[in-house]
Amino acid sequence: MSATRILSSLSKVFYPASIRVSAMSTAGETNALPEYETLSLSSPQEYVVQVELNRPERRNAMNKTFFREMIECFAALNKDSNCRSIVLSGAGKSFTAGLDLNDAASDLFSSEHQSDPGRQAFNFRENFLMPYQQSITCVEKCKKPVIVAVHGACVGGGIDLITACDIRLCSSDTFFQIKEVDIGLAADIGTLQRLPKIVGCESLVRELVFTARKFSSEEAVAMKLVSHVYPDRPALIEAAVKMASLIASKSPVAVQVSKINLNYSRDHTVDESLDYMATWNMCMLQSEDLLKAVQGQLQKETPKFSKL
Amino acid sequence: MSATRILSSLSKVFYPASIRVSAMSTAGETNALPEYETLSLSSPQEYVVQVELNRPERRNAMNKTFFREMIECFAALNKDSNCRSIVLSGAGKSFTAGLDLNDAASDLFSSEHQSDPGRQAFNFRENFLMPYQQSITCVEKCKKPVIVAVHGACVGGGIDLITACDIRLCSSDTFFQIKEVDIGLAADIGTLQRLPKIVGCESLVRELVFTARKFSSEEAVAMKLVSHVYPDRPALIEAAVKMASLIASKSPVAVQVSKINLNYSRDHTVDESLDYMATWNMCMLQSEDLLKAVQGQLQKETPKFSKL
Amino acid sequence: MSATRILSSLSKVFYPASIRVSAMSTAGETNALPEYETLSLSSPQEYVVQVELNRPERRNAMNKTFFREMIECFAALNKDSNCRSIVLSGAGKSFTAGLDLNDAASDLFSSEHQSDPGRQAFNFRENFLMPYQQSITCVEKCKKPVIVAVHGACVGGGIDLITACDIRLCSSDTFFQIKEVDIGLAADIGTLQRLPKIVGCESLVRELVFTARKFSSEEAVAMKLVSHVYPDRPALIEAAVKMASLIASKSPVAVQVSKINLNYSRDHTVDESLDYMATWNMCMLQSEDLLKAVQGQLQKETPKFSKL
Amino acid sequence: MSATRILSSLSKVFYPASIRVSAMSTAGETNALPEYETLSLSSPQEYVVQVELNRPERRNAMNKTFFREMIECFAALNKDSNCRSIVLSGAGKSFTAGLDLNDAASDLFSSEHQSDPGRQAFNFRENFLMPYQQSITCVEKCKKPVIVAVHGACVGGGIDLITACDIRLCSSDTFFQIKEVDIGLAADIGTLQRLPKIVGCESLVRELVFTARKFSSEEAVAMKLVSHVYPDRPALIEAAVKMASLIASKSPVAVQVSKINLNYSRDHTVDESLDYMATWNMCMLQSEDLLKAVQGQLQKETPKFSKL
Amino acid sequence: MSATRILSSLSKVFYPASIRVSAMSTAGETNALPEYETLSLSSPQEYVVQVELNRPERRNAMNKTFFREMIECFAALNKDSNCRSIVLSGAGKSFTAGLDLNDAASDLFSSEHQSDPGRQAFNFRENFLMPYQQSITCVEKCKKPVIVAVHGACVGGGIDLITACDIRLCSSDTFFQIKEVDIGLAADIGTLQRLPKIVGCESLVRELVFTARKFSSEEAVAMKLVSHVYPDRPALIEAAVKMASLIASKSPVAVQVSKINLNYSRDHTVDESLDYMATWNMCMLQSEDLLKAVQGQLQKETPKFSKL
Amino acid sequence: MSATRILSSLSKVFYPASIRVSAMSTAGETNALPEYETLSLSSPQEYVVQVELNRPERRNAMNKTFFREMIECFAALNKDSNCRSIVLSGAGKSFTAGLDLNDAASDLFSSEHQSDPGRQAFNFRENFLMPYQQSITCVEKCKKPVIVAVHGACVGGGIDLITACDIRLCSSDTFFQIKEVDIGLAADIGTLQRLPKIVGCESLVRELVFTARKFSSEEAVAMKLVSHVYPDRPALIEAAVKMASLIASKSPVAVQVSKINLNYSRDHTVDESLDYMATWNMCMLQSEDLLKAVQGQLQKETPKFSKL
Repeated sequence: MSATRILSSLSKVFYPASIRVSAMSTAGETNALPEYETLSLSSPQEYVVQVELNRPERRNAMNKTFFREMIECFAALNKDSNCRSIVLSGAGKSFTAGLDLNDAASDLFSSEHQSDPGRQAFNFRENFLMPYQQSITCVEKCKKPVIVAVHGACVGGGIDLITACDIRLCSSDTFFQIKEVDIGLAADIGTLQRLPKIVGCESLVRELVFTARKFSSEEAVAMKLVSHVYPDRPALIEAAVKMASLIASKSPVAVQVSKINLNYSRDHTVDESLDYMATWNMCMLQSEDLLKAVQGQLQKETPKFSKL
Repeated sequence: MSATRILSSLSKVFYPASIRVSAMSTAGETNALPEYETLSLSSPQEYVVQVELNRPERRNAMNKTFFREMIECFAALNKDSNCRSIVLSGAGKSFTAGLDLNDAASDLFSSEHQSDPGRQAFNFRENFLMPYQQSITCVEKCKKPVIVAVHGACVGGGIDLITACDIRLCSSDTFFQIKEVDIGLAADIGTLQRLPKIVGCESLVRELVFTARKFSSEEAVAMKLVSHVYPDRPALIEAAVKMASLIASKSPVAVQVSKINLNYSRDHTVDESLDYMATWNMCMLQSEDLLKAVQGQLQKETPKFSKL
Repeated sequence: MSATRILSSLSKVFYPASIRVSAMSTAGETNALPEYETLSLSSPQEYVVQVELNRPERRNAMNKTFFREMIECFAALNKDSNCRSIVLSGAGKSFTAGLDLNDAASDLFSSEHQSDPGRQAFNFRENFLMPYQQSITCVEKCKKPVIVAVHGACVGGGIDLITACDIRLCSSDTFFQIKEVDIGLAADIGTLQRLPKIVGCESLVRELVFTARKFSSEEAVAMKLVSHVYPDRPALIEAAVKMASLIASKSPVAVQVSKINLNYSRDHTVDESLDYMATWNMCMLQSEDLLKAVQGQLQKETPKFSKL
Repeated sequence: MSATRILSSLSKVFYPASIRVSAMSTAGETNALPEYETLSLSSPQEYVVQVELNRPERRNAMNKTFFREMIECFAALNKDSNCRSIVLSGAGKSFTAGLDLNDAASDLFSSEHQSDPGRQAFNFRENFLMPYQQSITCVEKCKKPVIVAVHGACVGGGIDLITACDIRLCSSDTFFQIKEVDIGLAADIGTLQRLPKIVGCESLVRELVFTARKFSSEEAVAMKLVSHVYPDRPALIEAAVKMASLIASKSPVAVQVSKINLNYSRDHTVDESLDYMATWNMCMLQSEDLLKAVQGQLQKETPKFSKL
Repeated sequence: MSATRILSSLSKVFYPASIRVSAMSTAGETNALPEYETLSLSSPQEYVVQVELNRPERRNAMNKTFFREMIECFAALNKDSNCRSIVLSGAGKSFTAGLDLNDAASDLFSSEHQSDPGRQAFNFRENFLMPYQQSITCVEKCKKPVIVAVHGACVGGGIDLITACDIRLCSSDTFFQIKEVDIGLAADIGTLQRLPKIVGCESLVRELVFTARKFSSEEAVAMKLVSHVYPDRPALIEAAVKMASLIASKSPVAVQVSKINLNYSRDHTVDESLDYMATWNMCMLQSEDLLKAVQGQLQKETPKFSKL
Repeated sequence: MSATRILSSLSKVFYPASIRVSAMSTAGETNALPEYETLSLSSPQEYVVQVELNRPERRNAMNKTFFREMIECFAALNKDSNCRSIVLSGAGKSFTAGLDLNDAASDLFSSEHQSDPGRQAFNFRENFLMPYQQSITCVEKCKKPVIVAVHGACVGGGIDLITACDIRLCSSDTFFQIKEVDIGLAADIGTLQRLPKIVGCESLVRELVFTARKFSSEEAVAMKLVSHVYPDRPALIEAAVKMASLIASKSPVAVQVSKINLNYSRDHTVDESLDYMATWNMCMLQSEDLLKAVQGQLQKETPKFSKL
């Protein structure tokens, strides 16, 4: 039996049976979620928001509208006290085919470009590279945990995107590809920067970057890019929503401070990270959530936490 | 056959047969070890000290006395030239149930608290967060390698503790739990800061942090949190002491300078780490241990190193 | 079936069949490669250079000449526009036995040494530690990807060397050993500094460092030090050259900027790494390779890239 | 003669006489500048924009509208190719009295606050501290040099603001005050973070922070917070505009890349800063400005640079 | 008139007349201060503690007892809620002659030393270098501002000590000397590490380090090492106590958070420092001191702050 | 009296009269110094080497030969045990006119350039920017203190050069100019990276960078770029050699370890710098220089130190 299966089966044992989730169910409390052209939002469970990449006819290729809407969407969810955890998924046959080359071509190969390489460089930096990077980074900066559920193809910009998420799940039919060198580029919106830090296999990462070869869900889970693999898309979405719902049932103070400090620790020394953590918790230990949670533990009851 | 078994069986092949250890044996040279209320010290082999969490009736829950005694104990072992490696284990049915909530409650929920949130924050920082962090960090700062042998339950503060050790072993009955969000907290004494840096699976780490679900020894070894798993506690302790004894037979200069530089490298760039290493070794290459060790290699004899 | 086999078989699926490589073939375009005493250079494929450690009678032990020639060789290859990727391998029965103790003994144990420990320390730092570190680091600093193909023994300094390479492959007969503590030393030319950052299993790394025990190719691939294992040396070399040839067929701008940024990202925060990446690409997006590669993709033709 | 006078008189010698500026003159090319409630924009010279704090009846106290408009204004100027340098000044009797306490009181002391200290902390962080910090930081992040011309009072938040500017000038009647401890606060939007890095007198800085005492223009210039002092407001504005106009006559590529790299160098090591600089200039050395400027130098003519 | 005099006279203008201090007066509320062999403590004003180096017969040379007692003393003052600011001064003719060579000789030149340079290095590090560094660093880590009042000689270790203080004042008869190279040493307990960061004149600093020449109070104030100079010791002590008393009258929350963040900012980027500051203040803005201080400002009354 | 004069006169008082130097005298022990095309080396005093920029007919403009020879020269002096301190000066009427534009033009404006902006960028980086940066940085990396004596003009690349020296002196006729923006460039070989860190007046530094205006020796000493100013070139050289000779009389271990740690401290936190310092001194405290120097102090005799 492969490592993938072992991990997958093990985790099932531990999730409490009380978390019963139908991926299609609608949460009781419905508040209006914002609407977008390239993204579709829904709330499959209380406090859980599912964000779906929604250009299935273009295999969810990432165009300028998408990059802009991602920033708007995650800024809104970051502030929305009805959202405690997020599932990110793709509509249609694939998670995403990556950068929409037709859409980007006008930026990259326009004849109206600045003829001066210096001015053109500033143009690329400010109107292309920086906004696209921010679009991916907004997922990481969002305080609410983001579980990405990947199926079908996850190519190029798709890898940049999933490496900025907190938890990565996929269906067994998924294939991945760090496509950038095949279009003459170094991956510049997150893959080279985040991927080596979220897995522990630099040798394989560099092979995948330099060769641009495809890799399967089995290889993805073996390299720990993905933590669980599921037989098909419905099982994947169900599991992702279930996990999101479990997270949403916890103290939002505890969960969000944990995400903020995990992000911080990745980029700082252990000593600095401990000091930062203490600076957060000298306040958060005064939060009502601590008492509620401890009481819940002692009385074997599920605590209800106020909105944050 | 699972990856766990493969790793476990492989490593047996390589340990030299000459290292025969009975976990119960007492080292020839006995010097008085300090005594503590919550810790029990013994010397199962020459130059090896075993530190046992010793409140089995409370499942070795971590109380204020424990946090203070850990600092005293590891400061003493750090200076003790009869100690070259340390085995950390738990007495009774479990390694540790984590923070002793009854003990901490007086700090966290006392009615005598400062009513001013600013003053209360200073109070928590100085009398609670900082000393508890130091208690865990003293294991990392100790120059002697620390092998932790985990069995039964390893919950909450137990995870903080084992991530500060050098080598993690467990028995197959062990379960682990990053419990903090379930008591309304972000893990603030080491787990969020160290765990992602000692394994290579950010996706799984974040799931375990945000959901607080239990995970088994199989999952722990698959995620590389633990490097070897043993059938039961006696086999675990025997293996830990054997490994500690092997380490204790090496040049203490070489071993301690290695630990100091492994700690340093985790928190610095490769170039800085190489410079720091060179600064240490421009002196340590003048140590007598180098010559003794090289002679030992050439003459196929086991060298004897002076105390350090 | 072990994880090793799974990974190994998976990757075969994905390499495009059009890459047909005979490890013995000679590239069409032959330009004179430099000659060395301890290294042997050849070009098995267009744009691929194979560097072979070539003191087989001494099991490729690393002597002063080797350390100097490595710097010269990789400086030359870094500038050579006919070299786009590098395979590093060892002639004879083993990759390398590590530091040549006979050769180093004159530096380490000479009776002509400075008697003043302060002056001796400066001597060691400048004439021994720094140049040896640079010799290993020059592999990392070289812009062209370096695939190391390890067989037989890879001991001591050999580990320092392979951790500075981009991609690590081995044959199933290989054994590895972080030997340094056995000669009374902390590993000072790269292992302690790089190894924990390229795999994700700190517990095992520290065991291997402190015990100096040997480990097999199976354990090496399970811990992700090595990304693929092959049945024997010919299969290993063939696979390494094939992979190098595939990389050499890509845009050299894309590949080299990728390596530079992967190196940078390892040592910086994600935000700093994204900014650095954008600073590179605001120029590189103006390169002709981008257009050539995109056209190639659209027209299903293999693009030809100019020398870099 | 005081150091202030010496510096002031010296600098006059060096400014080329060809730069004749009337502070009141209007630039030939007028393009519509955006309008704000708390800021007033004008263009006293070609490519120079003067931003004036414009609530003189409230001594330009900084309210929520001001903090928001600063972000909008500097984002617009950052993109405006007709703006190459910026003069920041205050209308009326003073530069600024600092934070508008009446305006902030509703945020700080509202009875509608969250009663949970944890939730209240999140509220302060996201709706108060972070936006106010960004408002000041946007001056630093703007690529165009910002010369601040200070007169009258510069208190509290005013110090935070001027430390984020590039060049600080004042009139002799100015007094300064790091006011925050007098309202029970640590200066949290820039003073504690930037002031010690832009002057070289930690002892005096800490006295001024801990005592909140006022200090005069003479002391400000002696401590190098301000680089030139002028007899009165008209002379100050004239000098600031003249300096801004001189800067606006230079290559915008050269000036903006210089500011970006000065900012970067403050926060990085010299080696990192050199590498970053080289990464910028490997592109910028291809800009037409280099050739234009060199030709101008050789032909003793003033070059005209394209918009950026 | 020299810059020294200007600065000195200016600052007098700004201190509110209401702060009337007799350096000899005793504070109303007397609580028992700890007693030491090498240090003498008193409380010249409410909430102000004066720590005097007290081995005048040895010109306050720094011996092992002194280094140990400094750590004990500043740990105690750090916790003492009756201490809000500290004046550090020297009894007798001089502030300090620096390291007590007679006392240190036994550590440095003992014949009982380890003969192995490696073991001797560990000995020096742990029993000499680290504790002496901590002794100086404890002044910096203390949350309460430390004003050092220097007179007579301030030599060698004295420079290390004053660079760890917050505010440096001296009498006009003072001379300074970075003495270390004259005893064959690099200054290893703070001068090389802190001095260049608290003044802005690297050229002069390096001259003073490499030549070990003496420099006067005039040069010290011109280089901004010292912020004010006074005619004699009584005037110096009076001014130091007055300044300390003024600081002690402010909100202790505001003052201590300011010191903590000034220390942090010195060692971090501006962006990191702003984030850390916001993390502190999201709690401290909830402190009662803010409201008390603002009310005091509005009502022109001096607020009374609770102990911290 | 200006601050310049005060500083200048003060320092004379403190230099011991026993250091009598005639700038023209030749050191007793003459060993062959290497010869260069653009540099002229001599030894005016024992252990002191004077390096003179020696293209007076081109006002010591910096050409490719100069940049290469600087690296060779300082590498040689770094190893030369007869060299303990270095005086850097310029032959003829000026220190240097900066970059030799005629020489650089072939690199910058050649018609043979790569037409691909990506390949051209690599070309500039590797053949122009990196080697020129290294040429300046080699002065900083040299372990021996470098005193630069500036007269006449110090323009453009000259500023880059002097900021990499340890101690800066000038004659009163000197003028300085950060010339780069006037040739369409950001200063890329050291000025933007080092200048703000060696003085404490960011406002003035940015003005000088953005305006490229000239500034005089008076302004240079007032801003602490230069620590002493002398009436003319002979007095300047005499003072520089005298200071170099005094430094050369000290323990070379103490001086070089001091320089190495001053460089390190500039780029690291105080805590990191203290740790690094302790790591050096745990070895250097075992050097014979310590005992010799202490004995010299006690016996009022000048110690003689062995070569290093």
